[in-house]
Order: sequence, then C-alpha cells, then structure tokens
Amino acid sequence: MYRTHTNGQLRADDINKEVTLAGWVQKTRDKGFMIWVDLRDRYGITQLIFDEDRSPKPIMEAASALGREFVVQVTGTVIERESKNPNIPTGEIEILVKELTVLNASLTPPFTIENETDGGEDLRMKYRYLDIRREAVRENLVFRHKVTMAVRNYLSGKSFVEIETPYLIKSTPEGARDFVVPSRMNQGQFYALPQSPQTFKQLLMIGGMDKYFQIVKCFRDEDLRADRQPEFTQIDCEMAFVEQEDVLTTFEGLTRHLLKEINGVEVGKFPRMTFDEALRRYGNDKPDIRFGMEFGELNEVAQHRDFNIFNSAELVVGIAVPGGNSYSRKEIDKLVDWVRRPQIGAKGMVYVRCNEDGSFKSSVDKFYNQEDLAKWAGVTGAEPGDLICVLSGEIDKTRAQLSALRMELAERMGLRKADEFAPLWVVDFPLLEWDEETERYHAMHHPFTSPKPGQMELLETDPGKVKANAYDLVLNGNEIGGGSIRIHDKEIQSKMFDYLGFTPEEARAQFGFLMDAFEYGAPPHGGIAFGLDRLVAILGGQETIRDFIAFPKNNAGRDVMIDAPAPIDSEQLKELHIKLNF
Amino acid sequence: MYRTHTNGQLRADDINKEVTLAGWVQKTRDKGFMIWVDLRDRYGITQLIFDEDRSPKPIMEAASALGREFVVQVTGTVIERESKNPNIPTGEIEILVKELTVLNASLTPPFTIENETDGGEDLRMKYRYLDIRREAVRENLVFRHKVTMAVRNYLSGKSFVEIETPYLIKSTPEGARDFVVPSRMNQGQFYALPQSPQTFKQLLMIGGMDKYFQIVKCFRDEDLRADRQPEFTQIDCEMAFVEQEDVLTTFEGLTRHLLKEINGVEVGKFPRMTFDEALRRYGNDKPDIRFGMEFGELNEVAQHRDFNIFNSAELVVGIAVPGGNSYSRKEIDKLVDWVRRPQIGAKGMVYVRCNEDGSFKSSVDKFYNQEDLAKWAGVTGAEPGDLICVLSGEIDKTRAQLSALRMELAERMGLRKADEFAPLWVVDFPLLEWDEETERYHAMHHPFTSPKPGQMELLETDPGKVKANAYDLVLNGNEIGGGSIRIHDKEIQSKMFDYLGFTPEEARAQFGFLMDAFEYGAPPHGGIAFGLDRLVAILGGQETIRDFIAFPKNNAGRDVMIDAPAPIDSEQLKELHIKLNF
Repeated sequence: MYRTHTNGQLRADDINKEVTLAGWVQKTRDKGFMIWVDLRDRYGITQLIFDEDRSPKPIMEAASALGREFVVQVTGTVIERESKNPNIPTGEIEILVKELTVLNASLTPPFTIENETDGGEDLRMKYRYLDIRREAVRENLVFRHKVTMAVRNYLSGKSFVEIETPYLIKSTPEGARDFVVPSRMNQGQFYALPQSPQTFKQLLMIGGMDKYFQIVKCFRDEDLRADRQPEFTQIDCEMAFVEQEDVLTTFEGLTRHLLKEINGVEVGKFPRMTFDEALRRYGNDKPDIRFGMEFGELNEVAQHRDFNIFNSAELVVGIAVPGGNSYSRKEIDKLVDWVRRPQIGAKGMVYVRCNEDGSFKSSVDKFYNQEDLAKWAGVTGAEPGDLICVLSGEIDKTRAQLSALRMELAERMGLRKADEFAPLWVVDFPLLEWDEETERYHAMHHPFTSPKPGQMELLETDPGKVKANAYDLVLNGNEIGGGSIRIHDKEIQSKMFDYLGFTPEEARAQFGFLMDAFEYGAPPHGGIAFGLDRLVAILGGQETIRDFIAFPKNNAGRDVMIDAPAPIDSEQLKELHIKLNF
Repeated sequence: MYRTHTNGQLRADDINKEVTLAGWVQKTRDKGFMIWVDLRDRYGITQLIFDEDRSPKPIMEAASALGREFVVQVTGTVIERESKNPNIPTGEIEILVKELTVLNASLTPPFTIENETDGGEDLRMKYRYLDIRREAVRENLVFRHKVTMAVRNYLSGKSFVEIETPYLIKSTPEGARDFVVPSRMNQGQFYALPQSPQTFKQLLMIGGMDKYFQIVKCFRDEDLRADRQPEFTQIDCEMAFVEQEDVLTTFEGLTRHLLKEINGVEVGKFPRMTFDEALRRYGNDKPDIRFGMEFGELNEVAQHRDFNIFNSAELVVGIAVPGGNSYSRKEIDKLVDWVRRPQIGAKGMVYVRCNEDGSFKSSVDKFYNQEDLAKWAGVTGAEPGDLICVLSGEIDKTRAQLSALRMELAERMGLRKADEFAPLWVVDFPLLEWDEETERYHAMHHPFTSPKPGQMELLETDPGKVKANAYDLVLNGNEIGGGSIRIHDKEIQSKMFDYLGFTPEEARAQFGFLMDAFEYGAPPHGGIAFGLDRLVAILGGQETIRDFIAFPKNNAGRDVMIDAPAPIDSEQLKELHIKLNF
C-alpha cells in the first residue's frame, strides 16, 4: 500500500497520527535547516516538513534534492502547523517526515503546473498528461464525469435504457462526410463511423425499447472550424409513443435537474419561441436571452424619408443599447468599424443617441426628425440614456450582423454571466433549407424529421415554408440540444427521400433497412440529442469545449501528443486491399 | 399524449378508470361477438376486450381487422376480467375499448415475436428490430443497462472518474490488427481505432487523475472465432499508487457488489490461485471451480510398469468422475471417442472403474494391479462408485484435453449451474509467451506489464519463467477481466520493448509519447479491464454474448441488417487519397 491517506484528507483531528502519503512535489522551500514541500495529488495538497533537529540526516539530504514533479512517498507524523494556511482544507497541519522514498524523478516540466500556467496551447497539448495535472483542467474532467453521472441516473430513473449502438456502420452521403474504415475481410468494402446513432435509435423504437438513451461518441470528417472536434460526444435520446410536447417536457426535466444538481440553480418553466420569432426578435435561432436588446424592425418608421440606404433595404432593424448614450463619438466610430469588419460584413451603422432630456441626436439627422426618431425609440424600446444601433440590408444577413453586434455589446457590458442560466426552446424549425451551392433544398435537421401535420402538401408549392416538428434547446446563446418527431410512415419517408433528391435505388441502398422496418409496425417516435462537450462547458461556465475533453485534437484534426494520424505500413495497406493515391 | 399508462401498469385498483394505451398487437382471439386483443409494450401485456353489446360497431370491425404487430392506440375503461390470468401482473383486469386508432399497420412478421420463436439466427439478425421485440432479447438489453449503471455508480462512489479517451488514435503493430481510418485532411495518413485505451489510461495516471474508469468500445480486426465481435465493450479501469493487492481488493469489491446487486448472490472472499497452479489443478488458466474433478498427476504412480504409452508420456493425468462407475461400457467407449475427436485430439483414454466394494477394474488391468490403481484413486481423489479418466502425452496438450473432458462431463452432469457463481483470481501470469510462428517471445498481457520485482534478470537467462504482476478474474470458467501492474520506469520499459523485438526507432515512433511521459514523474499504477459483453452474459446466466448486444455482427464481421460494410463511391475514395487494390 502506497499511502494511508490522500493529500486532501488530513485535518487537525489527525494530529499525532502516523501516516503515509504519496504524490507529486508541487514546490519546495529550502531554508537549509528546514525544508517544506507541498505534496500534491488529485485530492489536494499537504505540506511536508523536514528539519535538521527532527529529521534524519539522509532524509534531509534527499529532501533537498527533490525537484518539481518528483513522485515521492513519505511516512511521518501529522503535526500542527506553526503558520496555518486557511486557503486549503489541510492548512492546519503538516507532516513531519521520517521516511522518504523517491518513486520516480522528473525532468523539469516544460510549463508550470499551476492554474495560471506559462505554457502556450500547443505545448500544453503536446504534454497533455502534464496539463491534466493542473487543477483547472483536472477539475473540468471531474466536472464532466459528474454531469454524465447525473444524466445517466436521471434518465435511468425515468425508465430510459442506455443501449450501445454499433460504431462500425454504413456510409451514407447525406450530411457531413463520414470517416470510413476499410474492411480487411470484405474486400473493397468499408464501414463508416457514425455521425450519430440516428437510424439505430429509430430501430430501437421500432423494436419496442420505448425509451432509449446513450452517451456516445460521434464522428464527422468536416473541415474543422474553431472549437469543433472530429470526434465528439452526444447524449442521444429517443422515445416511442410521443408527441413533441412529451419530448420537450421530458428533456426540460433533465436540463432542470442538471442545473439544480450540478449548478445549484433553480429555473422555472423554459420559455418557448418559434424559429421565426427567434430570428425576428434576436436575429438568431439560438438567442441568448440572459439579456434584452431585442430587435426592433424599423421598416415602417424609417422608409418614408429620402434616406435611400434604408428605402432600398429589405430590412431596417435596430437595438437599444442600455446606457449607450454615454459612449464617446470615438467609441461609436469604433463600433461602426467593428460591424464593418469582413467577419461581420455590414456596410455601415446608423445610430441614435437618446438624450436624458428626451431629445435625440442621430447620424441621420439630415433625413429624420425628432418625431421619427421617437418612433424608432418606441419600436426598439430605447429609454433616455440609451443608444440605438441600426443596420439595414438583406433580411438574413442584416439579422446576423445585428445579432453579432448584440452579442458583442453584451459581452463588453458583462451581460453574459457565466453563472446565470437562461434556457429556451426554439420550436417550429423549417423542414428544409436552401443550399446555394447545390441549388436545392436539404433537410435542415435530417431526412427523418417529420413535417408538421397537414404541411406535406406545402412541399409541392412552397417547400421553404414547411415547418417541421423540430426543436432546439438553447442555453445562454448556445444550441445544447436538438431533435424532432420522426417520420414513422413508409410512404412519407419515401416522399421525403424523393424530395431530397434520392433516387428510389439510392434510398433503398442506404436506408432500405429503415424503410423495411417501417412496414412492421413502427410506432410514432421522436427524440433529441445533446452535444455533451458543449453542454458541459456551458454548465461549467466556460466557452471552450477543448478544456473539457481529456485528449482533444487540434484544428487540423491531429492529436499532437500521440502524433496521429500517421502513415501505416505497406503490408497493412495491402491486407486492407487499398493503396495510397496522391 | 399517446397513452395514460403503459401495458404493464394497470391493476385491480384501477378498475373503472378510463385509460388510453398504445402498443403492439401480440395476438387476437376473435369469437365474432367478442374479440380479445393482447396489447404489448416494453412494460407488459394488457388484454383488450371488444364486444358486440358494449363496443360501437365500427370499433368491432376495426378490431377484427387487426393483425399481429399492428401498432394501435385505444381508449376504454378498466374492467375486471372474467377469467383472470395469474401469470401476468395485469391479469386481473382488461380494457373495454371505446376508441381504437391504428397508428401503423404491419406486414406479417417473418418470425413469431415470442420467447420461443420459429425464426432462425440469420433471419432474426436481418430483422433485429423485430427480434428485439421478443421479451428474451429486450430483457437482456435492459439487464445490460442495469449492470452498467451498477458499475458506474459503484466506481463513481469509490472516487473513480469516468473519462472519455479518443477513438481516433494511432496504429500500433503490437497484438491484434487495428482497424484504420484514412485521414482526408492529412494525406496518406491514417487514424486507428483503439484495441483498448491502454496508453491513454496510463497517461491519465501520469496526469494525476488517480482513479479512472470508462465503459468503452474497443476494436480488433481479427478473424472472428465464434462469439467474437470486431467491436466489443470493456469496463476499463486504472489506479495510481497501487500494488497488485490494491487492485484485486478494489475490483473484487466491484464484482461482489454486482453479484449482490444484480443477482442477489452473496459471495465471500474470492479464492486465488497462481497461473501455474491453475494449469496443474485444472489444466486451464480460467478454471471453472463451481465443481471439483481436480486433476491428479499420475506420473509417479503410473510410470513404473511396462505400459509404454504412459512411460513415454511427459504427463499422465486423471480426473475422478463422481458416480462415473455407473456408465455402461458403451457410454465409456463414447467418451473415448469424444476425446479422440480432432477438436480435442487425444490419442486415447485409459479408465478405471472404482467399484462399490473398493476394488478396481481398468482398461489397463494387463499392466497395473489393484494396489497401483488404489494409488491412482488416492491421487485423483476417486471414491467407490467413481470413474477415473486418464490422459497422457505432452504436458500442455494433455492438460488442455483433460480440461475439455472435465468441462464436457460437468456440462452433462449439470454441474455448470447458471445461477451459481464461483469467482477466482488467477495471479502470477508469465510475462512472456513463446510464439511458434514468429519463433520469439511475445508479451502475454501487453508490453506495459511489469515483471515481478527482482525478476528482470531472469529475462536474460530464462525468459519463459519470468512472472508478471498480472492477474485475471475468472467467473464460472470464463475470463471476465484481466490486468496488471504497469511499468512506470522509462529504463525498464525500454528494455521491455527491446526484448520484444522493437528497434529503438520503432519504440520511439509508436510509444515515444509514453516514454516521454515516464520522464515527468510517472507514479506506480495498474489496472484491469473487464469484457462487458461476456460479464453481462454470465451474470445473466447465459453463454452467448451476441444475445446481450443490440446490433451484433455475424462471424464474417457483417451487420446483415444494415448490410455493412459496403462499397463507397469513387469520389469519396479520391478525397481520402486512397484507391482500391485487388
């Protein structure tokens, strides 16, 4: 046995006990006649003391040779500290060491093992095993474990059964790219890694499992944007004999439970908003509703003068920035520059200062009088002291630009509080979205999503208008979950594949098993999937999912620690019946 | 809402309630004036009744048109059954149906949805979603969920943290073949799917996580033997600052907890046996100790006569079959035939009948007298009424043959009871095993296994004798878990790689990250991995792991339901920088 206690365990009550501890040397203070060592493990830090009078000489010498991150085992007596440290739970005691064994030495680590480390991202990723020794990273991983345990116990308590679905499945060209796996035993054939267990969970519903969940890795071979991982984890859920309302109620329950259990926050019934409303009010289908600054559409009150920029715009829309009238001219100019950056792409920004005396001063005073501007204030909800920021142009782009501005301002004003949680259901998503590149409609969610009852006909006449039984759960401006009621009728599913451009042969080849399954008594069903990495980061009050993944990949999809991917040898290629081609 | 209750819920207390149920038509009995329907879901079966006098005519008509596996929703009143069914929990009531909606029709299923089905294995695999509707399969999946929840809650309660390790890692030629994944973004390079998270869990220990576990999919591209899957699930565990004793104690605790929680069985301290002893006493490193028939080595008492077959054998070894003297000559001849089958491969079998009067009658009476045979009985522990079966030849083969006979006889005698649990630790495994094909030693467990203290030197002189800090947990004759104390010293690890035939460059290329990690304060650590599929099957009292996997693959590694693996298109191959080669 290497230890009798961990380094987070001993208290004043333990004084005079003889104990054995093991851990890493966090730091040493060597005064010659006395040496203090902070010994660290996952559970905490315990101070060790070696002194000339009370410690054997060889032990003193060994102690003075200890370096950072050495792994040691000590035996000694718990004594009261002379100068107590109220900042750590073990701060009242220290260990007077009698025996010291160096279990392993350490080179000087390439960065400091402290919460505020001097290591850059690349270095920390290469030595991720050292990065994980930092409390900040370690506690994120422990936090993730707590969240998954809470999810599992909650869902299990609600009769959900966790069922493992296969990882070696079949490639389907729909959606993002699959990672594929050449089959050695089936020459010229490939497995694919699942982008989600979608069809399998539907088959489980057809199989009568009734309530399924799984915390499961999924894979997407996409060009990685910042903070995307080629492998990611979902809380994947499905229920049979449900309507949308049942799904929302169930997973609102789960989310409320997590907020309470993990964050100690009680939230009431989650507000709901349609997709259209979210875009109109926040310019965004995942609005952060922790703060206001709702959009005011100004077309009616701003397109009656000679200001051609507004008159020719599809949409004129503004937000009232609370207290924004205090911004200097220079600050406002900077805001204008900000929205004109290529990443945002606005042509310009009109603003209106709302003076404390009720008067207005705008960048378009040449065109609009006080009465006009008062109406703008009315529509945007601006109060004296606020600043109205107005963008104009094509509807979708303008909304996206103003939404970006709204988020940026909220960030600057400290309105995006990490410890405040504002969940929101966004419902009635469109079934289809237009893809500029391929010039046709794609399934917005996936091809198994059911259109709203009675909207199948709209498909022929106005496909973009068809709404789906699809919903997203939004938390603090992030989509943390999304799902839908599925099609469970073979005819409707066939029509949908047809509509999405599958030939009957393609539909058959890829999803024949599902179409067949629909013939044998498929129940109505629906579900949701949560992005666990994101959910955990948000519950943890942070933004970067990489900080909650033990061994993340970089933006090029590489694991820089193990140096993967890597070439494989020609023998292996041959066995797999493939060769390189570039 | 599709239902107010499930089909397993209603009792006599609910009589007169109006309820809505949904589910599958299990069977119908149509007497014309009265129709009964068994409505099934995951939770049970509820009987529906439609009758001429009390049900509206259109409902009667609809009911008589219902086929097996139709999905229906009914509303009606809970009434008392005339003829109660004590075999099901809902057997006291039935539902007098007022409203009936067919939610989905069904073709006649290709096999009966009953525990005793008429469907063959292939058909049931192709329509696995229908197979899962059978209570036997469904309950296995629910059982698996219960086991994993119990594992997670137990380990979590013992401060273990579940941490997800990556699935897209690096290929290593050691051990079984890897499945590989071509990287689109890194031309000519490949990820590999993990055979186990071995190196990552070691890095987590070096990272100070102290206690790790993960229920995780692993992958091996092996030629599949019966009941092997290319993807399988492990309960993977690792602990820092431990010796073998700590690991055994911890996971004996887990296993005992599972037996109690899942099976309601209390077991005492698990017996332990060395690898050498297991082979000597049972001819097998995973002995089933639910029953006796231990081996008796007869060399000393059987090699002193003129019986050349024994005299020239490396090993003469026998077992006493309880009550075996009752076997007829014909039965014994059949046993001899059984051991001579090519699958077993014995040349023949000598037997000794132990008569009730204390005398013996053997097949080698020409060579051995009563006194000799009495000694054999002493060594094998045979009592009057038993039959001693004796095999001879080369040690390893003879042990394997007699072990097979022992298991076969136990099976025939009903000694392998599914509800009896006999766990056993087998310890002190050899570090290396000789590979006939490559004519060199391989790591028996894996190259990270630590030799027993002080045995490093033996590597030079007698490598086959080196014992490792490696252990298996055996349950009812199956290895359910195995692990070891790992090497945590760079020098020893280098020597081991060297010994196993890695050049320093190969060791560096494949495991450089681990060797580097050993330089920065690696703690002593060790762990274990359980094969979840097997564990669940055994706890469930069954042998076939496939019955506990939702969507298993067949012996050719194919998923016959979704028809994977499958060809992918040339565009996809091109993007991945590979082409087919056969």
